[in-house]
Amino acid sequence: MKDFIIIGNKAVTGGKISLNDLCGSAGRMDVMCRCITASLFVSFGMRRDVNVHIVLKGPPSNPKIVRFSGEYLRYLNPDERSAGSLIQKALLLPENDIEKESTPGVYVRTGTLETLIREFSKENRNIILMDENGQNIREAINKNPNIFENPVYILGDNQGILEEDFEILKNYEKEYDIKKISLGEKSLLTSQCITIIHYETDFETTEK
Amino acid sequence: MKDFIIIGNKAVTGGKISLNDLCGSAGRMDVMCRCITASLFVSFGMRRDVNVHIVLKGPPSNPKIVRFSGEYLRYLNPDERSAGSLIQKALLLPENDIEKESTPGVYVRTGTLETLIREFSKENRNIILMDENGQNIREAINKNPNIFENPVYILGDNQGILEEDFEILKNYEKEYDIKKISLGEKSLLTSQCITIIHYETDFETTEK
Repeated sequence: MKDFIIIGNKAVTGGKISLNDLCGSAGRMDVMCRCITASLFVSFGMRRDVNVHIVLKGPPSNPKIVRFSGEYLRYLNPDERSAGSLIQKALLLPENDIEKESTPGVYVRTGTLETLIREFSKENRNIILMDENGQNIREAINKNPNIFENPVYILGDNQGILEEDFEILKNYEKEYDIKKISLGEKSLLTSQCITIIHYETDFETTEK
Repeated sequence: MKDFIIIGNKAVTGGKISLNDLCGSAGRMDVMCRCITASLFVSFGMRRDVNVHIVLKGPPSNPKIVRFSGEYLRYLNPDERSAGSLIQKALLLPENDIEKESTPGVYVRTGTLETLIREFSKENRNIILMDENGQNIREAINKNPNIFENPVYILGDNQGILEEDFEILKNYEKEYDIKKISLGEKSLLTSQCITIIHYETDFETTEK
Protein backbone atom coordinates (compact mmCIF):
# COMPACT_ATOMS: atom_id res chain seq x y z
CA MET A 1 0.00 0.00 0.00
CA LYS A 2 1.15 3.54 -0.84
CA ASP A 3 -0.40 6.53 0.89
CA PHE A 4 -0.03 10.19 -0.01
CA ILE A 5 -0.83 13.00 2.42
CA ILE A 6 -1.22 16.39 0.76
CA ILE A 7 -1.52 19.52 2.87
CA GLY A 8 -3.95 22.09 1.49
CA ASN A 9 -3.03 25.16 3.51
CA LYS A 10 -5.85 27.37 2.25
CA ALA A 11 -8.16 24.75 0.73
CA VAL A 12 -11.70 25.31 1.97
CA THR A 13 -13.51 22.92 4.31
CA GLY A 14 -17.09 23.76 3.31
CA GLY A 15 -19.10 22.36 0.42
CA LYS A 16 -19.98 25.75 -1.10
CA ILE A 17 -17.34 25.38 -3.78
CA SER A 18 -17.69 26.76 -7.27
CA LEU A 19 -16.26 24.11 -9.60
CA ASN A 20 -15.59 27.03 -11.97
CA ASP A 21 -13.26 28.65 -9.47
CA LEU A 22 -11.28 25.86 -7.80
CA CYS A 23 -8.13 28.04 -7.87
CA GLY A 24 -9.64 31.14 -6.34
CA SER A 25 -12.51 31.00 -3.88
CA ALA A 26 -11.91 27.29 -3.10
CA GLY A 27 -8.40 28.10 -1.82
CA ARG A 28 -6.24 26.49 -4.51
CA MET A 29 -8.35 23.35 -4.50
CA ASP A 30 -7.01 22.87 -8.07
CA VAL A 31 -3.69 21.82 -6.51
CA MET A 32 -5.47 19.13 -4.49
CA CYS A 33 -7.34 17.93 -7.59
CA ARG A 34 -4.16 17.58 -9.64
CA CYS A 35 -2.52 15.68 -6.78
CA ILE A 36 -5.43 13.23 -6.64
CA THR A 37 -5.11 12.54 -10.38
CA ALA A 38 -1.33 12.20 -10.17
CA SER A 39 -1.59 9.78 -7.26
CA LEU A 40 -4.32 7.52 -8.61
CA PHE A 41 -4.29 7.47 -12.40
CA VAL A 42 -2.30 5.54 -14.93
CA SER A 43 -3.37 5.32 -18.58
CA PHE A 44 -6.78 3.62 -18.73
CA GLY A 45 -6.76 2.65 -15.11
CA MET A 46 -6.31 3.36 -11.49
CA ARG A 47 -3.67 2.45 -8.97
CA ARG A 48 -5.78 0.31 -6.66
CA ASP A 49 -3.04 0.13 -4.01
CA VAL A 50 -2.99 3.89 -3.40
CA ASN A 51 -4.80 6.07 -0.86
CA VAL A 52 -4.71 9.86 -1.04
CA HIS A 53 -5.47 11.95 2.03
CA ILE A 54 -5.97 15.64 1.41
CA VAL A 55 -5.76 17.72 4.57
CA LEU A 56 -7.86 20.85 4.09
CA LYS A 57 -7.03 23.72 6.43
CA GLY A 58 -9.02 26.63 5.02
CA PRO A 59 -12.31 28.15 6.21
CA PRO A 60 -15.11 27.81 7.22
CA SER A 61 -14.97 24.77 9.52
CA ASN A 62 -12.36 22.76 11.41
CA PRO A 63 -9.61 21.13 9.34
CA LYS A 64 -10.84 18.12 7.41
CA ILE A 65 -9.31 15.05 5.85
CA VAL A 66 -10.78 13.77 2.60
CA ARG A 67 -9.51 10.31 1.68
CA PHE A 68 -9.62 8.85 -1.83
CA SER A 69 -9.19 5.07 -1.80
CA GLY A 70 -7.94 3.64 -5.10
CA GLU A 71 -9.36 0.27 -4.13
CA TYR A 72 -12.99 1.38 -3.83
CA LEU A 73 -13.08 4.55 -5.89
CA ARG A 74 -15.70 5.10 -8.57
CA TYR A 75 -16.85 8.12 -10.60
CA LEU A 76 -13.42 9.76 -10.76
CA ASN A 77 -12.02 10.98 -14.06
CA PRO A 78 -8.55 12.50 -14.46
CA ASP A 79 -9.75 16.09 -14.91
CA GLU A 80 -9.61 18.63 -12.09
CA ARG A 81 -13.33 19.30 -12.19
CA SER A 82 -14.12 15.62 -11.61
CA ALA A 83 -11.95 15.42 -8.50
CA GLY A 84 -13.32 18.81 -7.38
CA SER A 85 -16.86 17.54 -7.65
CA LEU A 86 -16.12 14.51 -5.42
CA ILE A 87 -14.38 16.75 -2.87
CA GLN A 88 -17.40 19.02 -2.89
CA LYS A 89 -19.76 16.11 -2.18
CA ALA A 90 -17.51 15.05 0.72
CA LEU A 91 -17.46 18.54 2.21
CA LEU A 92 -21.24 18.79 2.09
CA LEU A 93 -21.57 16.04 4.74
CA PRO A 94 -22.01 17.26 8.33
CA GLU A 95 -18.78 17.84 10.26
CA ASN A 96 -17.77 14.70 12.17
CA ASP A 97 -14.54 13.22 13.45
CA ILE A 98 -15.68 9.73 12.47
CA GLU A 99 -14.96 8.96 8.82
CA LYS A 100 -18.02 8.83 6.55
CA GLU A 101 -18.18 7.71 2.92
CA SER A 102 -19.57 10.47 0.68
CA THR A 103 -19.33 8.67 -2.70
CA PRO A 104 -17.83 5.23 -3.41
CA GLY A 105 -14.20 5.28 -2.27
CA VAL A 106 -14.27 8.86 -0.93
CA TYR A 107 -14.35 9.45 2.83
CA VAL A 108 -14.38 12.56 5.01
CA ARG A 109 -13.85 13.46 8.64
CA THR A 110 -12.43 16.34 10.65
CA GLY A 111 -8.74 15.94 11.38
CA THR A 112 -5.25 17.29 10.81
CA LEU A 113 -1.83 16.09 9.75
CA GLU A 114 -1.34 15.00 13.36
CA THR A 115 -4.39 12.70 13.19
CA LEU A 116 -2.86 10.91 10.22
CA ILE A 117 0.70 10.74 11.56
CA ARG A 118 -0.56 9.28 14.82
CA GLU A 119 -2.45 6.55 12.96
CA PHE A 120 0.28 5.71 10.47
CA SER A 121 3.01 5.61 13.10
CA LYS A 122 0.93 3.06 15.06
CA GLU A 123 0.77 0.93 11.91
CA ASN A 124 4.57 1.11 11.64
CA ARG A 125 4.38 2.58 8.16
CA ASN A 126 7.44 4.20 6.56
CA ILE A 127 6.69 7.92 6.79
CA ILE A 128 8.52 9.99 4.18
CA LEU A 129 8.50 13.77 4.13
CA MET A 130 9.18 15.17 0.67
CA ASP A 131 11.67 17.93 1.40
CA GLU A 132 14.04 19.72 -0.93
CA ASN A 133 16.79 19.32 1.69
CA GLY A 134 16.26 15.57 2.01
CA GLN A 135 18.25 12.69 0.56
CA ASN A 136 17.88 12.29 -3.21
CA ILE A 137 15.33 9.60 -4.03
CA ARG A 138 17.60 7.65 -6.39
CA GLU A 139 20.39 7.58 -3.84
CA ALA A 140 17.89 6.48 -1.16
CA ILE A 141 16.47 3.74 -3.41
CA ASN A 142 19.96 2.42 -4.02
CA LYS A 143 21.19 2.58 -0.45
CA ASN A 144 18.08 1.93 1.57
CA PRO A 145 15.24 0.55 -0.58
CA ASN A 146 13.36 -0.75 2.49
CA ILE A 147 12.09 2.71 3.36
CA PHE A 148 9.96 2.66 0.21
CA GLU A 149 8.00 -0.36 1.38
CA ASN A 150 4.51 0.50 2.59
CA PRO A 151 5.31 4.19 2.37
CA VAL A 152 3.33 7.24 3.45
CA TYR A 153 4.51 10.33 1.55
CA ILE A 154 3.81 13.80 2.95
CA LEU A 155 3.76 16.75 0.55
CA GLY A 156 2.84 20.41 0.89
CA ASP A 157 0.77 22.37 -1.61
CA ASN A 158 1.97 25.49 -3.45
CA GLN A 159 2.76 27.09 -0.05
CA GLY A 160 4.76 24.06 1.06
CA ILE A 161 4.57 22.76 4.61
CA LEU A 162 4.04 25.55 7.10
CA GLU A 163 5.58 25.98 10.53
CA GLU A 164 2.60 24.51 12.46
CA ASP A 165 2.84 21.26 10.49
CA PHE A 166 6.62 21.14 10.77
CA GLU A 167 6.13 21.34 14.54
CA ILE A 168 3.86 18.28 14.45
CA LEU A 169 6.45 16.40 12.42
CA LYS A 170 9.25 17.45 14.78
CA ASN A 171 7.32 16.08 17.77
CA TYR A 172 6.93 12.73 16.08
CA GLU A 173 10.50 12.62 14.88
CA LYS A 174 11.64 12.26 18.48
CA GLU A 175 10.11 8.81 18.79
CA TYR A 176 9.57 7.90 15.17
CA ASP A 177 11.92 7.90 12.22
CA ILE A 178 10.56 10.24 9.53
CA LYS A 179 12.74 10.16 6.40
CA LYS A 180 13.32 13.27 4.30
CA ILE A 181 13.54 12.67 0.58
CA SER A 182 14.10 15.08 -2.32
CA LEU A 183 13.62 14.71 -6.06
CA GLY A 184 16.34 16.78 -7.67
CA GLU A 185 17.49 20.32 -8.25
CA LYS A 186 14.28 21.81 -9.61
CA SER A 187 11.31 22.82 -7.45
CA LEU A 188 8.26 21.24 -9.04
CA LEU A 189 4.49 21.35 -8.66
CA THR A 190 3.26 18.97 -5.96
CA SER A 191 1.39 16.87 -8.53
CA GLN A 192 4.57 16.57 -10.60
CA CYS A 193 6.43 15.38 -7.49
CA ILE A 194 3.84 12.63 -7.01
CA THR A 195 4.22 11.48 -10.63
CA ILE A 196 7.98 11.25 -10.12
CA ILE A 197 7.67 9.38 -6.81
CA HIS A 198 5.53 6.77 -8.58
CA TYR A 199 7.92 6.65 -11.50
CA GLU A 200 10.99 6.14 -9.35
CA THR A 201 9.38 3.52 -7.13
CA ASP A 202 7.61 1.71 -10.03
CA PHE A 203 11.01 1.51 -11.67
CA GLU A 204 12.48 0.04 -8.52
CA THR A 205 9.77 -2.64 -8.42
CA THR A 206 10.21 -3.39 -12.12
CA GLU A 207 13.98 -3.72 -11.79
CA LYS A 208 13.81 -6.27 -8.99
CA MET B 1 15.08 24.59 -26.67
CA LYS B 2 12.66 21.75 -25.92
CA ASP B 3 9.50 21.31 -27.96
CA PHE B 4 6.54 19.08 -27.24
CA ILE B 5 4.01 18.08 -29.89
CA ILE B 6 0.80 16.64 -28.45
CA ILE B 7 -1.77 15.06 -30.76
CA GLY B 8 -5.38 15.77 -29.75
CA ASN B 9 -7.24 13.22 -31.84
CA LYS B 10 -10.74 14.44 -30.98
CA ALA B 11 -9.94 17.88 -29.55
CA VAL B 12 -12.17 20.47 -31.17
CA THR B 13 -10.93 23.16 -33.55
CA GLY B 14 -13.68 25.74 -32.93
CA GLY B 15 -13.89 28.35 -30.20
CA LYS B 16 -17.31 27.33 -28.97
CA ILE B 17 -15.86 25.46 -26.02
CA SER B 18 -17.55 25.19 -22.66
CA LEU B 19 -14.80 25.57 -20.06
CA ASN B 20 -17.11 23.56 -17.78
CA ASP B 21 -16.95 20.56 -20.13
CA LEU B 22 -13.40 20.35 -21.44
CA CYS B 23 -13.53 16.52 -21.18
CA GLY B 24 -16.77 16.01 -23.01
CA SER B 25 -17.97 18.36 -25.73
CA ALA B 26 -14.48 19.85 -26.26
CA GLY B 27 -13.11 16.39 -27.21
CA ARG B 28 -10.86 15.62 -24.25
CA MET B 29 -9.38 19.09 -24.29
CA ASP B 30 -8.62 18.42 -20.59
CA VAL B 31 -5.80 16.13 -21.76
CA MET B 32 -4.29 18.98 -23.80
CA CYS B 33 -4.62 21.35 -20.84
CA ARG B 34 -2.81 19.00 -18.47
CA CYS B 35 -0.06 18.53 -21.04
CA ILE B 36 0.44 22.29 -21.33
CA THR B 37 0.81 22.59 -17.55
CA ALA B 38 3.17 19.60 -17.37
CA SER B 39 5.34 20.99 -20.17
CA LEU B 40 5.61 24.57 -18.96
CA PHE B 41 5.29 24.78 -15.20
CA VAL B 42 7.72 24.31 -12.38
CA SER B 43 6.96 25.50 -8.85
CA PHE B 44 6.53 29.29 -8.94
CA GLY B 45 7.72 29.61 -12.47
CA MET B 46 7.72 28.66 -16.07
CA ARG B 47 10.17 26.81 -18.27
CA ARG B 48 11.05 29.61 -20.64
CA ASP B 49 12.96 27.28 -23.00
CA VAL B 50 9.89 25.17 -23.81
CA ASN B 51 7.34 25.35 -26.64
CA VAL B 52 4.21 23.21 -26.66
CA HIS B 53 2.35 22.55 -29.90
CA ILE B 54 -1.07 20.99 -29.52
CA VAL B 55 -2.39 19.51 -32.76
CA LEU B 56 -6.19 19.58 -32.65
CA LYS B 57 -7.90 17.20 -35.05
CA GLY B 58 -11.55 17.32 -34.02
CA PRO B 59 -14.48 19.20 -35.59
CA PRO B 60 -15.60 21.67 -36.86
CA SER B 61 -12.75 23.09 -38.96
CA ASN B 62 -9.48 21.91 -40.48
CA PRO B 63 -6.85 20.61 -38.06
CA LYS B 64 -5.17 23.38 -36.10
CA ILE B 65 -1.94 23.85 -34.22
CA VAL B 66 -1.98 25.97 -31.07
CA ARG B 67 1.49 26.83 -29.86
CA PHE B 68 2.33 27.91 -26.30
CA SER B 69 5.71 29.61 -26.08
CA GLY B 70 7.25 29.51 -22.60
CA GLU B 71 9.39 32.50 -23.53
CA TYR B 72 6.54 34.91 -24.23
CA LEU B 73 3.63 33.35 -22.38
CA ARG B 74 1.49 35.40 -20.01
CA TYR B 75 -1.84 34.83 -18.25
CA LEU B 76 -1.39 31.06 -17.85
CA ASN B 77 -1.98 29.42 -14.49
CA PRO B 78 -1.40 25.71 -13.84
CA ASP B 79 -5.10 24.77 -13.70
CA GLU B 80 -6.88 23.13 -16.62
CA ARG B 81 -9.44 25.87 -16.93
CA SER B 82 -6.75 28.51 -17.38
CA ALA B 83 -5.10 26.62 -20.26
CA GLY B 84 -8.56 25.86 -21.68
CA SER B 85 -9.44 29.53 -21.70
CA LEU B 86 -6.28 30.46 -23.68
CA ILE B 87 -6.96 27.63 -26.16
CA GLN B 88 -10.49 28.92 -26.57
CA LYS B 89 -9.26 32.43 -27.35
CA ALA B 90 -6.88 30.99 -29.95
CA LEU B 91 -9.62 28.96 -31.62
CA LEU B 92 -11.88 32.00 -31.89
CA LEU B 93 -9.48 33.64 -34.40
CA PRO B 94 -10.38 33.16 -38.10
CA GLU B 95 -8.92 30.01 -39.71
CA ASN B 96 -5.57 30.77 -41.34
CA ASP B 97 -2.45 28.80 -42.20
CA ILE B 98 -0.27 31.73 -41.16
CA GLU B 99 0.40 31.75 -37.42
CA LYS B 100 -1.36 34.51 -35.45
CA GLU B 101 -0.88 35.44 -31.81
CA SER B 102 -4.14 35.21 -29.86
CA THR B 103 -2.86 36.18 -26.40
CA PRO B 104 0.77 36.85 -25.35
CA GLY B 105 2.79 33.72 -26.15
CA VAL B 106 -0.10 31.74 -27.65
CA TYR B 107 -0.27 31.29 -31.43
CA VAL B 108 -2.67 29.51 -33.76
CA ARG B 109 -2.79 28.36 -37.38
CA THR B 110 -4.22 25.50 -39.39
CA GLY B 111 -1.82 22.59 -39.71
CA THR B 112 -1.13 18.97 -38.87
CA LEU B 113 1.62 16.82 -37.41
CA GLU B 114 3.15 16.82 -40.90
CA THR B 115 3.41 20.63 -40.92
CA LEU B 116 5.44 20.48 -37.71
CA ILE B 117 7.64 17.53 -38.68
CA ARG B 118 8.49 19.22 -41.98
CA GLU B 119 9.57 22.39 -40.15
CA PHE B 120 11.50 20.67 -37.37
CA SER B 121 13.32 18.31 -39.70
CA LYS B 122 14.53 21.33 -41.73
CA GLU B 123 15.90 22.79 -38.49
CA ASN B 124 17.77 19.54 -37.84
CA ARG B 125 16.10 19.09 -34.49
CA ASN B 126 16.22 15.73 -32.69
CA ILE B 127 12.75 14.31 -33.19
CA ILE B 128 11.75 11.80 -30.53
CA LEU B 129 8.57 9.76 -30.67
CA MET B 130 7.41 8.61 -27.27
CA ASP B 131 6.52 4.98 -27.88
CA GLU B 132 6.08 2.14 -25.42
CA ASN B 133 8.15 -0.08 -27.72
CA GLY B 134 11.03 2.39 -27.88
CA GLN B 135 14.36 2.40 -26.09
CA ASN B 136 14.12 3.11 -22.37
CA ILE B 137 14.91 6.76 -21.66
CA ARG B 138 17.55 6.06 -19.00
CA GLU B 139 19.36 3.63 -21.24
CA ALA B 140 19.20 6.17 -24.08
CA ILE B 141 20.49 8.99 -21.85
CA ASN B 142 23.43 6.81 -20.82
CA LYS B 143 24.31 5.49 -24.25
CA ASN B 144 23.38 8.33 -26.54
CA PRO B 145 22.77 11.57 -24.62
CA ASN B 146 23.16 13.69 -27.76
CA ILE B 147 19.67 12.83 -28.97
CA PHE B 148 18.24 14.80 -26.05
CA GLU B 149 19.85 18.03 -27.24
CA ASN B 150 17.37 20.42 -28.83
CA PRO B 151 14.68 17.75 -28.75
CA VAL B 152 11.17 17.67 -30.17
CA TYR B 153 9.03 15.11 -28.33
CA ILE B 154 5.89 13.72 -29.97
CA LEU B 155 3.16 12.28 -27.76
CA GLY B 156 -0.37 11.03 -28.38
CA ASP B 157 -3.36 11.83 -26.23
CA ASN B 158 -5.53 9.23 -24.45
CA GLN B 159 -6.08 7.52 -27.82
CA GLY B 160 -2.36 7.44 -28.55
CA ILE B 161 -1.02 8.11 -32.03
CA LEU B 162 -3.40 6.89 -34.71
CA GLU B 163 -2.58 5.17 -37.99
CA GLU B 164 -2.77 8.35 -40.11
CA ASP B 165 -0.12 10.05 -37.97
CA PHE B 166 2.05 6.95 -37.86
CA GLU B 167 2.01 7.04 -41.67
CA ILE B 168 3.32 10.62 -41.63
CA LEU B 169 6.09 9.59 -39.26
CA LYS B 170 6.95 6.53 -41.37
CA ASN B 171 7.36 8.73 -44.46
CA TYR B 172 9.77 11.00 -42.63
CA GLU B 173 11.67 8.12 -41.08
CA LYS B 174 12.94 7.18 -44.53
CA GLU B 175 15.02 10.34 -44.79
CA TYR B 176 15.15 11.47 -41.23
CA ASP B 177 16.13 9.66 -38.07
CA ILE B 178 13.17 9.66 -35.65
CA LYS B 179 14.09 8.05 -32.32
CA LYS B 180 11.60 5.99 -30.34
CA ILE B 181 11.85 6.34 -26.59
CA SER B 182 9.85 4.70 -23.78
CA LEU B 183 9.52 5.51 -20.10
CA GLY B 184 9.08 2.21 -18.33
CA GLU B 185 6.71 -0.67 -17.82
CA LYS B 186 3.59 1.29 -16.89
CA SER B 187 1.35 3.09 -19.38
CA LEU B 188 0.88 6.59 -18.03
CA LEU B 189 -1.21 9.67 -18.78
CA THR B 190 0.38 11.86 -21.47
CA SER B 191 0.87 14.69 -18.98
CA GLN B 192 2.64 12.30 -16.59
CA CYS B 193 4.95 11.24 -19.43
CA ILE B 194 5.90 14.88 -20.03
CA THR B 195 6.70 15.38 -16.32
CA ILE B 196 8.99 12.34 -16.45
CA ILE B 197 10.71 13.44 -19.67
CA HIS B 198 11.55 16.75 -17.98
CA TYR B 199 12.65 14.96 -14.84
CA GLU B 200 14.96 12.56 -16.64
CA THR B 201 16.50 15.21 -18.85
CA ASP B 202 16.76 17.85 -16.07
CA PHE B 203 18.61 15.21 -14.09
CA GLU B 204 20.96 14.61 -16.98
CA THR B 205 21.73 18.32 -17.24
CA THR B 206 22.25 18.61 -13.49
CA GLU B 207 24.58 15.62 -13.39
CA LYS B 208 26.93 17.00 -16.04
